[in-house]
Amino acid sequence: MRNLNLLTDYYQLTMAQGYYKKGKEEKAVFDLFYRRNPCNNGYAIFTGLEQIIEYVENFDFEKDDIEYLKNQGFDDKFLEYLKNFSFTGDIYSVPEGSVVFPKEPLLKVEAPILQAQLLETPLLNFINHQSLIATKAARITKATQGKNVLEFGLRRAHGPDAGIYGARAAVIGGCSGTSNVLAGKKFGVNVSGTHAHSWIMSFDSELEAFRTYANNFPNSCILLVDTYDTLKSGVPNAIKVFKEMREKGIDSDFYGIRLDSGDLAYLSKESRKMLDEAGFEDAVIIASSSLDENVITSLNLQGAKIDLYGVGTKLITSHDCPSFGAVYKMSEYNNEPKIKISDNIEKVTNPGNKKLIRIYDKNTMTIRADLIALQDEEIKENGPITLFDSRDSWKTTTLKKGSYKLREMLNPIFQNGKLVYDSPSVQEIKKYTEKEKESLGNEYKRLTNPHIMKVDLSDKLFDLKRKLLNQNSQK
Amino acid sequence: MRNLNLLTDYYQLTMAQGYYKKGKEEKAVFDLFYRRNPCNNGYAIFTGLEQIIEYVENFDFEKDDIEYLKNQGFDDKFLEYLKNFSFTGDIYSVPEGSVVFPKEPLLKVEAPILQAQLLETPLLNFINHQSLIATKAARITKATQGKNVLEFGLRRAHGPDAGIYGARAAVIGGCSGTSNVLAGKKFGVNVSGTHAHSWIMSFDSELEAFRTYANNFPNSCILLVDTYDTLKSGVPNAIKVFKEMREKGIDSDFYGIRLDSGDLAYLSKESRKMLDEAGFEDAVIIASSSLDENVITSLNLQGAKIDLYGVGTKLITSHDCPSFGAVYKMSEYNNEPKIKISDNIEKVTNPGNKKLIRIYDKNTMTIRADLIALQDEEIKENGPITLFDSRDSWKTTTLKKGSYKLREMLNPIFQNGKLVYDSPSVQEIKKYTEKEKESLGNEYKRLTNPHIMKVDLSDKLFDLKRKLLNQNSQK
Repeated sequence: MRNLNLLTDYYQLTMAQGYYKKGKEEKAVFDLFYRRNPCNNGYAIFTGLEQIIEYVENFDFEKDDIEYLKNQGFDDKFLEYLKNFSFTGDIYSVPEGSVVFPKEPLLKVEAPILQAQLLETPLLNFINHQSLIATKAARITKATQGKNVLEFGLRRAHGPDAGIYGARAAVIGGCSGTSNVLAGKKFGVNVSGTHAHSWIMSFDSELEAFRTYANNFPNSCILLVDTYDTLKSGVPNAIKVFKEMREKGIDSDFYGIRLDSGDLAYLSKESRKMLDEAGFEDAVIIASSSLDENVITSLNLQGAKIDLYGVGTKLITSHDCPSFGAVYKMSEYNNEPKIKISDNIEKVTNPGNKKLIRIYDKNTMTIRADLIALQDEEIKENGPITLFDSRDSWKTTTLKKGSYKLREMLNPIFQNGKLVYDSPSVQEIKKYTEKEKESLGNEYKRLTNPHIMKVDLSDKLFDLKRKLLNQNSQK
Repeated sequence: MRNLNLLTDYYQLTMAQGYYKKGKEEKAVFDLFYRRNPCNNGYAIFTGLEQIIEYVENFDFEKDDIEYLKNQGFDDKFLEYLKNFSFTGDIYSVPEGSVVFPKEPLLKVEAPILQAQLLETPLLNFINHQSLIATKAARITKATQGKNVLEFGLRRAHGPDAGIYGARAAVIGGCSGTSNVLAGKKFGVNVSGTHAHSWIMSFDSELEAFRTYANNFPNSCILLVDTYDTLKSGVPNAIKVFKEMREKGIDSDFYGIRLDSGDLAYLSKESRKMLDEAGFEDAVIIASSSLDENVITSLNLQGAKIDLYGVGTKLITSHDCPSFGAVYKMSEYNNEPKIKISDNIEKVTNPGNKKLIRIYDKNTMTIRADLIALQDEEIKENGPITLFDSRDSWKTTTLKKGSYKLREMLNPIFQNGKLVYDSPSVQEIKKYTEKEKESLGNEYKRLTNPHIMKVDLSDKLFDLKRKLLNQNSQK
């Protein structure tokens, strides 16, 4: 286990010392939420909870951490306190892999303020990274219209963790596997890959390189055909080798070619023809080369013949939207609801200790809306429910009794510092995410200008927010 | 030490097994280079070498790695070989923190092909991440015109490593410090930070929150003034507390305010006036909030009064250019020069075992050009030197004997698998990078449309490249 206890912003520790010396032990409630879906998607996929659990479980300050902080001028008594630090609070969270929407509490920490504060930076770091990549993977796999996507980005990821946890998030978000071996080992996800141009170049001829590869890996034999000339050399040589395999009686489970440069639409169609004409209708065509959801959509429109996509840089960095803006804001302190006001109305927070309720259509089990309510409110299925749009409150929808189902989204993860939750495996989370996507209408899933899911505030919460805003403006 | 031995693409291992089974033990030479400067900058800063050294030094396959690969179907004999694996080759590299340009070899691996191949992915991962962030930091610190920049991005970084090594790279690239405590501990770089909105909100009043903070940290007392209303509440309360400190005879080394939202140009000018009028001319104004080199340039043009910038998301993700495209290509195999051809002329590689020579103006010691030559060529200072532009070879410049100085850029790091290089500290690298930037004319450093540095090929290399291209087109 790496020591990541100091994976935090310095001000968390100065504040912690401040709280400690002032004797502030009151309970605070913090909400983790985000304000906008990345890439203008209609939703995000909440990912990273397992790493939070690992972090909190192992969160204590070691001798060298304390020494470092001492050299930074921190107070001896405070450091003595840190030596014996352990998390004693509660954490609630939506399940990992859930479809989520802006402004709603995704994770909630209830703990003495010092403890809750110290968790801010690592929690945001895990969630912001993994939810970003999972959401991008959902967009990219949506674009392929059912064809599988492999995550290929390790070399362009922002360091080892970005590669490892990025692969994890990509698989949860929709990829069928990754090229990242360590991610495969760590999370039990599918790994795959064949060879690079250097393999070809180390042989006297492309044909010999292909033949050697096929002899080595007859059952997973994808030949990279663009080292010299895709249609004049690569594909004909691949076909030659496939014929030799057939003549030897090898019935490969998985064989075909990979295109890694050039006009993928044209080359895939021509290659498909050549393979089919030679009797290799079941040979697959894999494409890679600066792909993202827009390029893939364009390839589909052009009738490209691609069976499997390898997506690297644009996925592992979420290239056109490389940050997920989750924040962590105090909503209650010492049992008093708190609000963060701002000139920017979008940045005003929702006060109070809250819960998140998902409202499904009872017949289709698709999501109708999310409702943010105060923790102690009872929200029941025994009457009609009227939803106000949180931005345009004159827009309302009333759901009749019996037409909807409610689901509490925030589950206890830690209680009194004890883990009370079993993390599912990555494959289980992946399956759950597939279901989550199915609970979302198509108009919320389209890649361009999706519908915006209603995220409503309960009447009580709405009134509380207005009251606190008014109090603040009178200060 | 984390076990990162499998931090690689699956195809590196399938190729390795292929090489092993074919008995291919010939030496290959691989070059690491990139094709375009990120963010259209005039140069990049090569960063990440120390992590490569650590990786190569610790590169051996552990029991659980071997087991995992066995379950993936790898060959027993090959796995036996991996059990006893150690790197026995040579690695050459430009010094960490060097100013570098597209297409030139920045790092060179000479080793039996299997070994050289296995290093591709981790080497690219380290260099691509850190060089990206260092280069972005250089752009951002350039924009501040001498004012210091603190790296604040950990919560938006792509996982822990992206935060930790991103902070390292940011400091090398030009930042004066980071908020990231673990990076501070690991690399001995400056860390700093004060408090967040939650600190203020946990007190009954902003004034009490400021006062408590000032009592705790009188010598590094930056007060966050935008929780309620910057000019009506935040700055007046800060001034009240600064007056109280003065009355108590506290002469703070470092005190002032932080603006974290709103119109930073307007607010900084108004705050400056208020602070000055109250006699706090030495109070500093720190600004943060979605800053990057463009926003900072705009703030400067508006006459903003900002002494220190905190830059988060846009730096730690290099938001508008979040990937650095370094690649790793074979240039020689079994003593034969190799070329990777492509329809895209930009992607044709430079063949052969090469060296990189930097040519300085002897008087100013600014960089005139870089020259890529074959390893066994003698390039001497005893005559005139004619430089051809690598894209437009009709453009030439002749430097007279005595007017220039040469410098070999690639230094031995590993020889026969043994480390022969002492890694400098991050602070030393940072100083070196400052000097490197000084060796670059201003026109190469401007943020928009910089001059493009000449990167020339020696005549011998040029002829070799043409010969191999002709051979390939006749195939």
